[in-house]
Amino acid sequence: MPEQINRQIVLASRPVGYPKESDFKLIETELPRADEGEVVVRAIWLSLDPYMRGRLNDVQSYAPAVEIGGVMVGGVAGEVVESRSPAYKVGDIVQGPLGWQEYAVSDGRNLAIVDRSLGPLSTFMGVLGMPGMTAYFGLLDVGSPEPGDTVVVSAASGAVGQVVGQIARIMGCRVVGLAGSAQKTDFLINDLGFDAAINYRTDNVESALDANCPDGIDVYFDNVGGYITDAVLERINTFARISVCGQISQYNLEEPELAPRNLRFLIVNQARMEGFLVTKFAARFDEARKRMSKWMATGQLRYREDVVDGLEKAPGALIGMMTGENFGKLLVKVSEE
Amino acid sequence: MPEQINRQIVLASRPVGYPKESDFKLIETELPRADEGEVVVRAIWLSLDPYMRGRLNDVQSYAPAVEIGGVMVGGVAGEVVESRSPAYKVGDIVQGPLGWQEYAVSDGRNLAIVDRSLGPLSTFMGVLGMPGMTAYFGLLDVGSPEPGDTVVVSAASGAVGQVVGQIARIMGCRVVGLAGSAQKTDFLINDLGFDAAINYRTDNVESALDANCPDGIDVYFDNVGGYITDAVLERINTFARISVCGQISQYNLEEPELAPRNLRFLIVNQARMEGFLVTKFAARFDEARKRMSKWMATGQLRYREDVVDGLEKAPGALIGMMTGENFGKLLVKVSEE
Repeated sequence: MPEQINRQIVLASRPVGYPKESDFKLIETELPRADEGEVVVRAIWLSLDPYMRGRLNDVQSYAPAVEIGGVMVGGVAGEVVESRSPAYKVGDIVQGPLGWQEYAVSDGRNLAIVDRSLGPLSTFMGVLGMPGMTAYFGLLDVGSPEPGDTVVVSAASGAVGQVVGQIARIMGCRVVGLAGSAQKTDFLINDLGFDAAINYRTDNVESALDANCPDGIDVYFDNVGGYITDAVLERINTFARISVCGQISQYNLEEPELAPRNLRFLIVNQARMEGFLVTKFAARFDEARKRMSKWMATGQLRYREDVVDGLEKAPGALIGMMTGENFGKLLVKVSEE
Repeated sequence: MPEQINRQIVLASRPVGYPKESDFKLIETELPRADEGEVVVRAIWLSLDPYMRGRLNDVQSYAPAVEIGGVMVGGVAGEVVESRSPAYKVGDIVQGPLGWQEYAVSDGRNLAIVDRSLGPLSTFMGVLGMPGMTAYFGLLDVGSPEPGDTVVVSAASGAVGQVVGQIARIMGCRVVGLAGSAQKTDFLINDLGFDAAINYRTDNVESALDANCPDGIDVYFDNVGGYITDAVLERINTFARISVCGQISQYNLEEPELAPRNLRFLIVNQARMEGFLVTKFAARFDEARKRMSKWMATGQLRYREDVVDGLEKAPGALIGMMTGENFGKLLVKVSEE
């Protein structure tokens, strides 16, 4: 009776610095059953995202840490396979924060039924999911791009960055992306229509920004932090906006990185730097998803997915993301649709 | 004929690190005469302000550098003593960026007639002048304080800080100021009505912030930068606003100070950090001056001036300001009103 087995990935130990495979453990447990008011969901797609690194630390932040022995957190799209809730029926396709496991039980409050008319199911983990919402609101509401602005985005071929750059193009901006391989920078220019792309591993970032942003930088969408952000700050224009989304270059450092203080760039340029969490904009997700879906339909908004097969691959894939091994939105295909 | 002599202070050499008296030179020149359309102004008050340090560097920033041999820049309130302009008559009291000199010639375009009904002439260099406008707009427009918010201000007994704290009190905020002596912190609490004050030279800033901001920090008005700003950032609340006005702790360093990167605090707290220059709000200065004048009349807005007598004292006073030797708005009394 293989249906009776659930596979879960739990946190085995708290990583120091970069996570290792041994910090995670695959366990087999009994298939969960729904109590009154609950549903059981079979995971189809599991989303892997940089924020997960923060949850591995034993620090109370905007969200609680994963407990040692606890199931890893993560967004999932899946199918209701058992329901004792009036809100869901068997066969419904739903999404929610169900974690790294093949089957999850839920009281339904953290689930939403997927409107499959908007796009393929996997895109609800990407363009139409949390990364897409992050890109949409982090660029449009926090970054406030105007037509003609120069917009720079780091980690530009990732789940968030690729969407940021394309929306900025739709808004009439000049878009410059940073990514970590020639394959990625080619993709940004040839497939996504970026105006320019910088390979931060091989180019001199400072001179490449000078060359590709001849009119300075009006909006920076920061996914990475570190020296790339320093270099951008030195090149911002008056009234520039910096949307601080992520700092992946810093998440796995055992000691904080020291850098020259640079707040004076904010003063002399009268610039704004704002950090955000996508949850702030939750009331407007439906509106954004509809707009994004239209852009997808017209071909203005494309996306690239990096799919790994099988729940057991999740730890390695997450670790690889920390050094940019993924190419596009990283997804685990947990089971067939 | 002593009236025929003008005394000016010019930049003798570009300081490296902290300025020295020998970087400035007092020279005597001929009394300037007004050409057609011009006026000659006798300086009464000269304002000394932290931004002046930036003008000593040979760097194009938001304003040009002072040339070697050029008269030092500075805001002045004075009296028109000769006029060949239809816009001004002899005896008019005016203010403008006339520099470190006893007499200045102007075509009038950078001058404004002082509305003396609003307050004493010296306050047009302080509460009703550039520092007061900086405090007003930097707090209200950039910092957006709400009643009940905890507002922290650094360099709190200085020209800008003292006004920031009192306006925050008027707005119904809990106000905590940082200053560099017991005399200054006593003044903040006893004379200006701050809720708490921290002596950054003798207190442990981190534990003093914990003790005095039990509900965290909602607004930080940053005049200093450096480790104080680091300590504040670690204690901000969700949706905190950081108004970046100055970074005086950094202006005289020969090498940039290295510090742990801390943009993650902006993300996890969804916080906004914005640099500004007061000139952005110039169209609203009259509105602000009227409001400030009313608060002065009702005793809700007090101010402390630190006056040095005679133009020749300006270099030493500016140098002293860089290490917090001044206590209140630093002014040079160049001549009698």
